[in-house]
Amino acid sequence: MDMSAKRHLVLVLVLSCLWGALSMPDPKHREDLMKTEASMQTGGRMVLSEKEQQLSSRLLQMKSEEVMRVDFPPSMHFFRARDLIKESPIFSLLQKVPKGAALHLHDFSMTSVEWLVKNSIRFFFSSQIPKPLPQCSPWVLLEKLRALTVNVTALDDSIMKNLTIFTDLDPDVAYPSQDVLWNRFEEAFRAVSGLVTYAPVFRDYYYQGLQELYADNVMYLELRAMLSEVYELDGSTHDMIWTLKTYQEVTRQFTADHPEFFGARVIYTIHRGVNSTVMAQVVQKAMQLKKTFPDLVAGFDLVGREDPGRPLWYFRNELSLPSDKGLQLPFFFHAGETNLEGSEVDQNLLDALLFNTTRIGHGFALLRHPVAKELSRKNGVALEICPISNQVTKLVDDLRNHPGAVLMAEDHPLVISSDDPAMFGSSGLSYDFYEAFVGFGGLRSNLGTLKALAINSIRYSSLSTQQQDKALAMWQKRWNKFIIENT
Amino acid sequence: MDMSAKRHLVLVLVLSCLWGALSMPDPKHREDLMKTEASMQTGGRMVLSEKEQQLSSRLLQMKSEEVMRVDFPPSMHFFRARDLIKESPIFSLLQKVPKGAALHLHDFSMTSVEWLVKNSIRFFFSSQIPKPLPQCSPWVLLEKLRALTVNVTALDDSIMKNLTIFTDLDPDVAYPSQDVLWNRFEEAFRAVSGLVTYAPVFRDYYYQGLQELYADNVMYLELRAMLSEVYELDGSTHDMIWTLKTYQEVTRQFTADHPEFFGARVIYTIHRGVNSTVMAQVVQKAMQLKKTFPDLVAGFDLVGREDPGRPLWYFRNELSLPSDKGLQLPFFFHAGETNLEGSEVDQNLLDALLFNTTRIGHGFALLRHPVAKELSRKNGVALEICPISNQVTKLVDDLRNHPGAVLMAEDHPLVISSDDPAMFGSSGLSYDFYEAFVGFGGLRSNLGTLKALAINSIRYSSLSTQQQDKALAMWQKRWNKFIIENT
Ligand SMILES: [Zn+2]
Ligand SMILES: [Zn+2]
Repeated sequence: MDMSAKRHLVLVLVLSCLWGALSMPDPKHREDLMKTEASMQTGGRMVLSEKEQQLSSRLLQMKSEEVMRVDFPPSMHFFRARDLIKESPIFSLLQKVPKGAALHLHDFSMTSVEWLVKNSIRFFFSSQIPKPLPQCSPWVLLEKLRALTVNVTALDDSIMKNLTIFTDLDPDVAYPSQDVLWNRFEEAFRAVSGLVTYAPVFRDYYYQGLQELYADNVMYLELRAMLSEVYELDGSTHDMIWTLKTYQEVTRQFTADHPEFFGARVIYTIHRGVNSTVMAQVVQKAMQLKKTFPDLVAGFDLVGREDPGRPLWYFRNELSLPSDKGLQLPFFFHAGETNLEGSEVDQNLLDALLFNTTRIGHGFALLRHPVAKELSRKNGVALEICPISNQVTKLVDDLRNHPGAVLMAEDHPLVISSDDPAMFGSSGLSYDFYEAFVGFGGLRSNLGTLKALAINSIRYSSLSTQQQDKALAMWQKRWNKFIIENT
Repeated sequence: MDMSAKRHLVLVLVLSCLWGALSMPDPKHREDLMKTEASMQTGGRMVLSEKEQQLSSRLLQMKSEEVMRVDFPPSMHFFRARDLIKESPIFSLLQKVPKGAALHLHDFSMTSVEWLVKNSIRFFFSSQIPKPLPQCSPWVLLEKLRALTVNVTALDDSIMKNLTIFTDLDPDVAYPSQDVLWNRFEEAFRAVSGLVTYAPVFRDYYYQGLQELYADNVMYLELRAMLSEVYELDGSTHDMIWTLKTYQEVTRQFTADHPEFFGARVIYTIHRGVNSTVMAQVVQKAMQLKKTFPDLVAGFDLVGREDPGRPLWYFRNELSLPSDKGLQLPFFFHAGETNLEGSEVDQNLLDALLFNTTRIGHGFALLRHPVAKELSRKNGVALEICPISNQVTKLVDDLRNHPGAVLMAEDHPLVISSDDPAMFGSSGLSYDFYEAFVGFGGLRSNLGTLKALAINSIRYSSLSTQQQDKALAMWQKRWNKFIIENT
């Protein structure tokens, strides 16, 4: 992926023959510079077949029309833009694009809430009141709930409202600050996890999540998972080994049912709110899991809002345990999901890189850190960019101002992902691909960009090179089919 | 100003001794990287005296408190943030900072509207109805106006409302789109120009404008001026030579009255809405003016909204006239004040550079143009960054996401200016300095940043090196005084 040296050379050559010109700039040189710039973007050097070029032109045509709209979706809040995006022809096409891998997705917001409500409602039917659960509100009889609501749809709707942060209200009124937003977000996360950690729901929820990715033409997943305890109605619980094994079994079942799906891996995550003692235990546990399930467990990460949380450097001793013990534990740190420039937490980006993170979750603040940016580029540490998530959590309004637009203009190592799609009223990767392709890329990104983003998602995955080659071959077949079917 | 080579060297050295480490990152190396990054920002290599360091620490303390506020002004629309900024201790200090030069300011929005209304009201008192003016609405007797309003203050307020786009309403409701905003903006501009182009007002307006800059501790101005016809009540008009000479005389008067003020120059501007024939005439005129008033006229620029306007390349023949004729006409092009990525207008940045522009007005889109960015950096073509203007014209909401934050992190050649302060309900440079220092810089920028911004504004001015040295010596005296008075 390192073509940066070559790129610089080209740039210097073009510039040196041009600069110092006195009369009208030579249109030929101008053209060359424009081409150089276009070639520097993500996918800018991708060679396209004739058919691909045809499709690329069609995409550009669609985009020109999209840009002319008074309500330009990438400039609007996703909650208001969603239906506009859904209806746009370019989105229909983006859904069909074989997008490769989803590398930044969390366990309890991967599956649509509609499905969850319809399929977890059954666990309200129990012959006796189940044992109370420590982190949940007390059990309520469904008939009591029913008495309070007019009809089942209304009940479903009211339950659903608690399980996502999506709202039809003005999002800036509903969530006036990052604090309010994150509180509601973590609340909804706890509510979902109360439903999903019920064993029978857990299996189905994950299977359904894979189904939704598959339907969105995603072929591989690296799932950030808390590996929470899963319970049965009799009060018994399963430990994280059970949870991991369930992920493994369901993934096997799913790939058996869908041979075009490549598979899934788990990135074990812990909330950054824990103390050092707990962190030390968790890191030990993570090393053990990685050793026991080397093909299933990709590595380790911390989750939860960065701003009020402990910075990575606070846990420097605990995070050094793997290298101290000579054990392998790849990191996939969330970092730079902040706009508190110059704060302690803003140091997470550099620290993630110093701890040899494999990828960076978000990296929203990267542009303000030229040293970290250089390290990420030189060492091929890709950013997992989640446009809708950053907008919903109020880091940026108009997505054309998202740093991803700049990073894509420079072909910085990156992939596009969706973080918590169910929570945002989104699903799969296509909505985020829309924001990146139409919003970040403007009129400049083309089919080569989409192709590069898909290839990136496999090349920057945790898979071994051999596995990547296999996945790429599989992807290429689907890509070729996609091209034929759409030209 | 070209320390970029040296900077890269330092970065490479630090990285090479660090990378590949296996156990906990060496805290010393981490510290070094953080220092390297901090040193890369605007003013990051400025050596500060002991007293300056004291003041810098005080500034940092003030900023930490500012960042803790629930309503963080740089994240808010300026119309709502203005009073918060005005009351903040850091703003009081920023007002006192000798800020050097204002390099991007327009003729008819440099002076506060309060002053304009109070001092142009007199031209309603005329013994007979004056001749109608082509671009203005018909004359109205003040008594008729009075009959419609309750009291003089209400009349003043209602006039004022037409002369600025500032509003107490929700700015997103008042101006739901860039189109609406720009229409109101150009309307207000025409209204002001009707008042200001009345000869007696014209002189006083400009003198008062200089006064306001001086009060804000600005010492030099490069004013973008349309050099419009100026009228008398008898219907007679003055041509642009008169206008230019008036600027010259008033500037001389002002510097005589205020020996600490260095002076002013004019950048002759034309609306980009004209056709090629008119443009050719105007460029000829500009060359002639530059020749006749070499010390007064700095150069030439096009104004008006870029998006719907003709791109620079459309005028390539006309803009080549100076070099074709071997005459000197420095350009100071507005460019990249857009978020229409990949459009024809988005090419203005590169074209401005190809036409050897001396500086770039705004350059908001520069980060999305790596080739243009490289050219601007290598050739020391500074951006005139106007944070509040870009926010008001709806290019960006939260100013922490303004590209200036990234460019300042990299010490890209730039200056801070205020574009149309009176139009935005702002004044001088201090409000924009606040946004840049607190919003762009976060907790990382320091007194060295402010010092560098002031020095930049002189070094990137159109003054000769000799004049710059003189201006810098003048500035240094004021700076020393400022340091002593504030430690
Ligand atoms: Zn995440
Ligand atoms: Zn301007």
